[in-house]
Amino acid sequence: MTEPKPDLTTPSIFHHWSEDTIRFGDMDATGHVNNVAFARYVETGRVPFMRSGLLPAYDDRQRFVVGNLSIRFRAQAYYPGTVRIGTGVCALGRTSMTLGHGLFSGEDCIATAETVMVYIVGGRAQALTDDMRTALQPMLLAAP
Amino acid sequence: MTEPKPDLTTPSIFHHWSEDTIRFGDMDATGHVNNVAFARYVETGRVPFMRSGLLPAYDDRQRFVVGNLSIRFRAQAYYPGTVRIGTGVCALGRTSMTLGHGLFSGEDCIATAETVMVYIVGGRAQALTDDMRTALQPMLLAAP
Amino acid sequence: MTEPKPDLTTPSIFHHWSEDTIRFGDMDATGHVNNVAFARYVETGRVPFMRSGLLPAYDDRQRFVVGNLSIRFRAQAYYPGTVRIGTGVCALGRTSMTLGHGLFSGEDCIATAETVMVYIVGGRAQALTDDMRTALQPMLLAAP
Amino acid sequence: MTEPKPDLTTPSIFHHWSEDTIRFGDMDATGHVNNVAFARYVETGRVPFMRSGLLPAYDDRQRFVVGNLSIRFRAQAYYPGTVRIGTGVCALGRTSMTLGHGLFSGEDCIATAETVMVYIVGGRAQALTDDMRTALQPMLLAAP
Repeated sequence: MTEPKPDLTTPSIFHHWSEDTIRFGDMDATGHVNNVAFARYVETGRVPFMRSGLLPAYDDRQRFVVGNLSIRFRAQAYYPGTVRIGTGVCALGRTSMTLGHGLFSGEDCIATAETVMVYIVGGRAQALTDDMRTALQPMLLAAP
Repeated sequence: MTEPKPDLTTPSIFHHWSEDTIRFGDMDATGHVNNVAFARYVETGRVPFMRSGLLPAYDDRQRFVVGNLSIRFRAQAYYPGTVRIGTGVCALGRTSMTLGHGLFSGEDCIATAETVMVYIVGGRAQALTDDMRTALQPMLLAAP
Repeated sequence: MTEPKPDLTTPSIFHHWSEDTIRFGDMDATGHVNNVAFARYVETGRVPFMRSGLLPAYDDRQRFVVGNLSIRFRAQAYYPGTVRIGTGVCALGRTSMTLGHGLFSGEDCIATAETVMVYIVGGRAQALTDDMRTALQPMLLAAP
Repeated sequence: MTEPKPDLTTPSIFHHWSEDTIRFGDMDATGHVNNVAFARYVETGRVPFMRSGLLPAYDDRQRFVVGNLSIRFRAQAYYPGTVRIGTGVCALGRTSMTLGHGLFSGEDCIATAETVMVYIVGGRAQALTDDMRTALQPMLLAAP
């Protein structure tokens, strides 16, 4: 990919925000928030984004599934505190889209992440519809 | 209750056993397994017991729900390791039964627990059937 | 115990409150919040209460450990949403105290819980000090 | 990267194996194992690999931290069951190494993953030592 990518550490690029509470049990024996808890925070950003009305509701026939999850850990996080998760669309593929996430706690960007969501109809990957592309256009994250 | 209670710290009273793997993330910032992970281990004992064929399968109309969970913590547990969970029936009530659990790691009983399972039909507590009582009889934990 | 007990379903009896975010992953395959997540919410109430300055800070020599946890499940909970957890003291024993918790989501009391915290000094249960008793007195939950 | 990469879906390339128990609570409201639980299984592979004696034990001064985690989801997983996690080294960088993981349940490769571990000394990324490189050489995963 030679296209410029959005800088997910910049809060101002996100229009969709979720919030999660850091739990005592999110910390592990090393005394900071465990990296698996970061994956949970990414989900806290993803689920409401996918349900925000931009996309058709899931049913028995069609839905999106997580095909790939990639997290870059940028700073430690600690209990107590909150995490704000910004979510948008990095790229639209043929049968999938890549969500971009920025995770922020206090002033810090603690992680950035990308989630590839694959569109599944009747058990197989299928092309995103034109309606979906139109609906998702305003959620595309701007590259610098 | 003046009835003698089974001693849940004694492995030999249990006929139904499950096993779980202690995960690194089960430990918290204090460096031992977090008490909420113990509640997860109890579930690892409960779910297969409830599905072991002694009771009717859940459907849209009837099922058992957890009404009460009580855990007594008896020893620290650490990663890595495994937990063996013995499960049986402490008592049969009118619309509920009380499961008894012993959690063991290595030689130690790390916790004992009781789970009250309420029988729900059409959204309301209902009397256990005679068939259920007959099926559960062999799973009653013996008091000393 | 013949003493009247506080009614933990009544929000107004609590002076100490915590809040947690219900996570998508707190729900299990039955489509409602898993009972183990409730144990996590109780922890979200317990930890800040224990750190609120009423009690001496933990050190290598002395600390409180969870001796018993008991949860009564009163209503289903669902994602998305928040849980508010009220925490206070139900009873002061010789070497332990019993915390009382009410868990509320929206208008509903979804669960009540009790946590027995044992005071450990040098590895053994030890009597609560007079200073602790004095500090905890205002946190005693009123019985009706 | 134009170098051939190891095929992480092939069990025979791995020499280091861990096992985890799929828990009822690992499944989410969609009825299959939640993608965050896969991140936990990757950790079940990573932690014992890092502690297997190939690398110096962590201390106050030096340790490895997770810099990046990437998971490709390849098949659904369900409770009950177990997950076997194969772990090896995909690549050795200057101050980091990339672990490769294959997650298998029954006959299926349910996911592959890569974890970038950064070597930190005194708070800063530092070059892997020659001793580390020598010790890790046998754990390099063969490309086809």
